[in-house]
Amino acid sequence: MNDPPAPPTGPVRREDDILERIAAIVGRRTIPDGEVHVGDDAAVLRPFVGELVLSTDAAVGGVHLDPALFPLEDLGFKAVAAAVSDLAAMGARPRATVVAVIAPPGTDLDALHRGMADAAAATSCPIVGGDLSVGADVVVAVTVLGECPGRGAVLRRGARDGDELLITGPLGRAAAGLRRRRAGASLDDPLVVAHRRPWPRLAEGLAARGAGVHAMMDVSDGLALDLHRLADASRVGFVLDAVPVADGATLDEALAGGEDYELLIATDDPARLRRQFTDRGLAEPITLGRVTAEPAVRTLGGQPLERRGWQHHW
Amino acid sequence: MNDPPAPPTGPVRREDDILERIAAIVGRRTIPDGEVHVGDDAAVLRPFVGELVLSTDAAVGGVHLDPALFPLEDLGFKAVAAAVSDLAAMGARPRATVVAVIAPPGTDLDALHRGMADAAAATSCPIVGGDLSVGADVVVAVTVLGECPGRGAVLRRGARDGDELLITGPLGRAAAGLRRRRAGASLDDPLVVAHRRPWPRLAEGLAARGAGVHAMMDVSDGLALDLHRLADASRVGFVLDAVPVADGATLDEALAGGEDYELLIATDDPARLRRQFTDRGLAEPITLGRVTAEPAVRTLGGQPLERRGWQHHW
Repeated sequence: MNDPPAPPTGPVRREDDILERIAAIVGRRTIPDGEVHVGDDAAVLRPFVGELVLSTDAAVGGVHLDPALFPLEDLGFKAVAAAVSDLAAMGARPRATVVAVIAPPGTDLDALHRGMADAAAATSCPIVGGDLSVGADVVVAVTVLGECPGRGAVLRRGARDGDELLITGPLGRAAAGLRRRRAGASLDDPLVVAHRRPWPRLAEGLAARGAGVHAMMDVSDGLALDLHRLADASRVGFVLDAVPVADGATLDEALAGGEDYELLIATDDPARLRRQFTDRGLAEPITLGRVTAEPAVRTLGGQPLERRGWQHHW
Repeated sequence: MNDPPAPPTGPVRREDDILERIAAIVGRRTIPDGEVHVGDDAAVLRPFVGELVLSTDAAVGGVHLDPALFPLEDLGFKAVAAAVSDLAAMGARPRATVVAVIAPPGTDLDALHRGMADAAAATSCPIVGGDLSVGADVVVAVTVLGECPGRGAVLRRGARDGDELLITGPLGRAAAGLRRRRAGASLDDPLVVAHRRPWPRLAEGLAARGAGVHAMMDVSDGLALDLHRLADASRVGFVLDAVPVADGATLDEALAGGEDYELLIATDDPARLRRQFTDRGLAEPITLGRVTAEPAVRTLGGQPLERRGWQHHW
């Protein structure tokens, strides 16, 4: 009455069979007692502690990653890493990922899911469920959940006049990596790797929340766009002295390249923040400048900093 | 330095402007104290009670809904309703929805989001965040979160030999509605409405969990597929006496049409289940048959029930 079960490496056609293969790729080897991951109508997770933090992000093949330059695995990795970075930006502890994949027939779903599984493992944000549909584009829609035990999540809106602005690392690596790849650099080139395999600053985000910082966000669309967003949310301005440019990157890439996923932080106690970082073995955050009360003042080195960066155009 | 803010009804191009418009459509008017919905890196929700239940579902224009027959709004509504139905299937209480939308330039994003907002409001599962990207297909990827205070979520795997199998309503309405619409019926036709605006059985799911049922799932892909899945998960068989066919539907539509979102329930105490339903003013569940210990026995009216229903083919 039933079809015979598909052999694990043989040809597969039925959705249920494919989902089983995928579950074997993305599923956690050990599922915590009392949890249910892939295989039911929904995943069941043990209770969360404190505020729940939640973000969704889609990556589209050809839009977010050029398939002529990068393997499909990278699309999966980047989609999960970008979503987890939103948890880092709140200072949250990752708990779970679910992924909805849309792809045309013939897509290497194993490769795509291997990339997602790698990012989920690297960030301790296990994939607990998913969905699969047919469509023209390869689309990976990732939702991540985290928790904030103790002190609440850090928002964009809390920056205050006089706060110091800091960043967790130099900028422009991802954009420089894309430029180098387009010019023929190998996938192993360190800057190309920074583009293909972004690293969410989870430990830094937790440390910053522990240090009681006023505002935080990740610089996913470029400092020259995201800093304006933080200033808008906080109804403040900013005066930047200098922007740390990564080795091999240009100032323009540092300002508007995006996809670096460093964290931008505003705090009135930078000494405490630095101590929290060094106590945890993290690289010290780099000072960018200061928050000002006047929302119209937004400068870098005395010149207005234009709002620009990566946006979809409709 | 900044672009002037777009007027609320005027032409818009920048992603941030569009996101603001969408937030006004999907956002809840009143946000609970201590929560942050749209507008930060991630949404922040007050602590959940008990187990957390989580599901993701994508709907693709042209695959899940024929744009020649149905307005775009219906794609948004169906995507959210289908995801929320997975919460109903676990007996969970809805808490939050996030939506990732991919669409080609020129798509009526307002209509799409209105449909999602309607379904979110109707199911008390507010949209708290989202993402927007450009792509060839219209894709709506919905993730829903729920909580299970008290007793844990109801899984597929708990059905036992001798359990009664019940369904929350007659089947085939959605498939019959699609057939009627193809034949020219109006969008207001009651069966067409059943197809366009499916109603997740949240109250029924909560009542069933309260009644301590052994297993539950929603019949989203058709009884002749989903009942096999429940039996597989529980390692049992089933003997069905009859299947309730909705007025205007055929037996084939009831068995394999899918998208009805009624709940399939296995319990050793059907009297208690019926009492829970009638106490809450819900229509009594309908008996389908019984669970048997032997996984190979899977019959309807004495004949083998073939595994068939809606699956993607790769």
